[in-house]
Amino acid sequence: MKTQRLLYLAIVLLIPRYIFASGGDPFASDFLAIFFLIVGAVIGGYLAKRLKQPPVLGELIIGIIVGTILYQMNDSVTIAIRHLAEVEHVMDMESSDLTWTETVHHAMDHMELKPDVTEKLSTVLLSDDYHHFLQHARYVLLFSSFGVILLLFMVGLETKTTEMLGMGRSALIVAIIGVISPFILGYFVTVLLLPEASTNTAIFVGATLGATSIGITARVFKDSHALDLKEAKLVLGAAVIDDILGLILLAVVTGIVTSGSFEVVGLALILFKAVAFLALVYLFERYVIQKTINKFAVLAGERTFLFFPVGLLMLLSWTADAIGLATIVGAFAAGMVIQERYFDEVRLPHQSIEDLVGPIEEIFAPVFFVMMGFQVNVLAFLDLRVVAIGLGITIVAVLGKIIAGFAARRGYNKWLVGIGLIPRGEVGIIFASIGKSTGVLDDRLFAVVILVVILTTLITPPMLNKLIKTENAKLALRKA
Amino acid sequence: MKTQRLLYLAIVLLIPRYIFASGGDPFASDFLAIFFLIVGAVIGGYLAKRLKQPPVLGELIIGIIVGTILYQMNDSVTIAIRHLAEVEHVMDMESSDLTWTETVHHAMDHMELKPDVTEKLSTVLLSDDYHHFLQHARYVLLFSSFGVILLLFMVGLETKTTEMLGMGRSALIVAIIGVISPFILGYFVTVLLLPEASTNTAIFVGATLGATSIGITARVFKDSHALDLKEAKLVLGAAVIDDILGLILLAVVTGIVTSGSFEVVGLALILFKAVAFLALVYLFERYVIQKTINKFAVLAGERTFLFFPVGLLMLLSWTADAIGLATIVGAFAAGMVIQERYFDEVRLPHQSIEDLVGPIEEIFAPVFFVMMGFQVNVLAFLDLRVVAIGLGITIVAVLGKIIAGFAARRGYNKWLVGIGLIPRGEVGIIFASIGKSTGVLDDRLFAVVILVVILTTLITPPMLNKLIKTENAKLALRKA
Repeated sequence: MKTQRLLYLAIVLLIPRYIFASGGDPFASDFLAIFFLIVGAVIGGYLAKRLKQPPVLGELIIGIIVGTILYQMNDSVTIAIRHLAEVEHVMDMESSDLTWTETVHHAMDHMELKPDVTEKLSTVLLSDDYHHFLQHARYVLLFSSFGVILLLFMVGLETKTTEMLGMGRSALIVAIIGVISPFILGYFVTVLLLPEASTNTAIFVGATLGATSIGITARVFKDSHALDLKEAKLVLGAAVIDDILGLILLAVVTGIVTSGSFEVVGLALILFKAVAFLALVYLFERYVIQKTINKFAVLAGERTFLFFPVGLLMLLSWTADAIGLATIVGAFAAGMVIQERYFDEVRLPHQSIEDLVGPIEEIFAPVFFVMMGFQVNVLAFLDLRVVAIGLGITIVAVLGKIIAGFAARRGYNKWLVGIGLIPRGEVGIIFASIGKSTGVLDDRLFAVVILVVILTTLITPPMLNKLIKTENAKLALRKA
Repeated sequence: MKTQRLLYLAIVLLIPRYIFASGGDPFASDFLAIFFLIVGAVIGGYLAKRLKQPPVLGELIIGIIVGTILYQMNDSVTIAIRHLAEVEHVMDMESSDLTWTETVHHAMDHMELKPDVTEKLSTVLLSDDYHHFLQHARYVLLFSSFGVILLLFMVGLETKTTEMLGMGRSALIVAIIGVISPFILGYFVTVLLLPEASTNTAIFVGATLGATSIGITARVFKDSHALDLKEAKLVLGAAVIDDILGLILLAVVTGIVTSGSFEVVGLALILFKAVAFLALVYLFERYVIQKTINKFAVLAGERTFLFFPVGLLMLLSWTADAIGLATIVGAFAAGMVIQERYFDEVRLPHQSIEDLVGPIEEIFAPVFFVMMGFQVNVLAFLDLRVVAIGLGITIVAVLGKIIAGFAARRGYNKWLVGIGLIPRGEVGIIFASIGKSTGVLDDRLFAVVILVVILTTLITPPMLNKLIKTENAKLALRKA
């Protein structure tokens, strides 16, 4: 009896739905949701650390577990989050001569959803409180959306263009092949294993596999004190270039997907826009910002030095979207523009921009990863075909990067280079989130892509550690 | 012709509505809105500084100007923001047997709105995109809501309970009278000048006048190098106590308003809840947090030290709301709990918690003030009766605090003390925002309260400067 009560108490305390009481403040329950997301991120990050895994894995997995439980319990907000694309579709069908109930029934008849999804969605949409469920779903997604633009802003901040240009031809070739070969392999494996998928979908899956996560590999090299290995330098150089290539690829692919068709003219236009955008931002930085930045610093005043960077982040994110690129391309560009210069100008004694923006990003970015896990429908893997697709894509994801390793010059340990490029990490997840929100990746493929990210991230460190040991042993032998 | 085109360009560039193009990212236009809010805050803050006024005034006034222009131009998002309470009401009236058009017409017939408001609202609600307008309105309000809880969190951080308790009986008496006398005067002047207002409304107006803004007075004393005057110490001490008294008063008044009626039992219950909440949080800090805080620091890891403070902020804000207090009471409590201790524990070399949370607050809080100005319907002042109410309330707002000055002990310059307490600043605005969102302050009274804040903030510094000069001259004479 007592355990029963404790269990009940635990459920009441743990499941936001039951706590979403109505108070005076319309946003109070969203504050609670953020609290739970933070708790999830802390627990996930901590467990990952204990298991010597990158925090992002822990955050994803916590999200998957909690999301699956809440979805199975028919939590309305969770259902709204997972099926937001479908909900938007229903709302767009609303017209002046139909009641809401009629609209929902009508829309459900026309959408091809699984019966259990139809049932869950209808229940949510026909409840009296559906407006509130939708609002909370959107607020949470807005937060995670903040996380991702802040993340890319930080990546931009840390990308030194001069360093990148000096990285040499070798890194460039490895990077380009490292994007192209998984792209082609990913495209064909999708067409092969999922013949009913559209060309767009296959292109998008391919593009997702092109990404490289510098974070995970860098940490392994660092933990093994192997950052001085020439392979490490090559891998990290190629990964930085991959960031830019990946963003351009994403811009192109998103353009293709939202314009709806794959045309050479359209493709060229988007490629042009992406390159022109980054080039214009670079010129703007070079010839405008550098010369006027001290005025911005004065205008913003002493305590408000974040106005300019955050303002620019918002403006460029929107601009990128407005010209048909992804918002994160703009966020990345904003980071590149700001770099350290602004803060040198403001002359803060002990604080760099990383010190200031870092803590904000560290709150929002993990929330993004938890929310990504939250949206993964693990039950999709009960279907053996989805498992087959997942394995097929994981295999080509690994293979594609190993091929890139063999593009390294003679004298490099080609396996070490190739395997160093395998983890997809954050970038793969960002691709997946855009694919899901534009509808080009369905439930199953979204789950597959997240699985690929998790698997590539899990398998890399042990393999890398082994190869680093061999390489260090060789070096020691040569020296001896 | 050329000026015509330039004008057109300016309009296109300046008015978000025309730029709200649809891109792939559903949140892109909200990023743009935040950009404009930041630009507004920067310009407002800068102009205020040039005119030697506190930034909050500039932010409010920029908000008022832009809000009025957009509202007059029938910008849909602006209309949705200003009339969100009415929109919520319409949405609550939606039922399964009415189409949306019928619901809107039905609701409009039943709400007593002015004809022009009815027309504006109907146009927005009956447009095809009304869902999107509402979403953007809510996102912006969510942001400003973040601003206010971060602001109160910072106030909590900077409130030293020990210092407060040592402030002495004199400051306590001045503080209490400084809350009670404007409260009573405000209540009666509202009843007198606006006989049709409900008792709740009159109570709320009175409570709003009880607040003191420590920031403005402190700056004047500081700028005149007069922080060592005994009057300055008394005023600042009383203002700090006023923060707490104001929050308790707000908790009580919000409770009365949301429960709908003024009952002695209800009043006692809310007062009990408010005191119990703050006391429990204090005990929790004393006996739990202090002893376990090092564990939280470890759990949160190196780069994620903001998880715990922000998590606590979210949790306590929600908790306060859930037990019927205002969210900001919880935010304040969270700041009190954290203070410096957590950060001493994490041992960051050059960064205090103010360094870390400060920049975030400095982004969000000005957005809150701009948004408050944005919601002020200045056209309400075209009605002479509203002007009369505004003047009446401003007079008692000043009078109430001057009375408190006369409660100071002998030997103090009583005028200096009283006038030092006049500015209402942020706290008055926070009261107003809660009054507006709970519906207890209508359009007119919201505008009046904001006017009172602006006027009290404007008139204080010159008067204070003059008195400080006299006082300094006296001191110099005595010394000579």
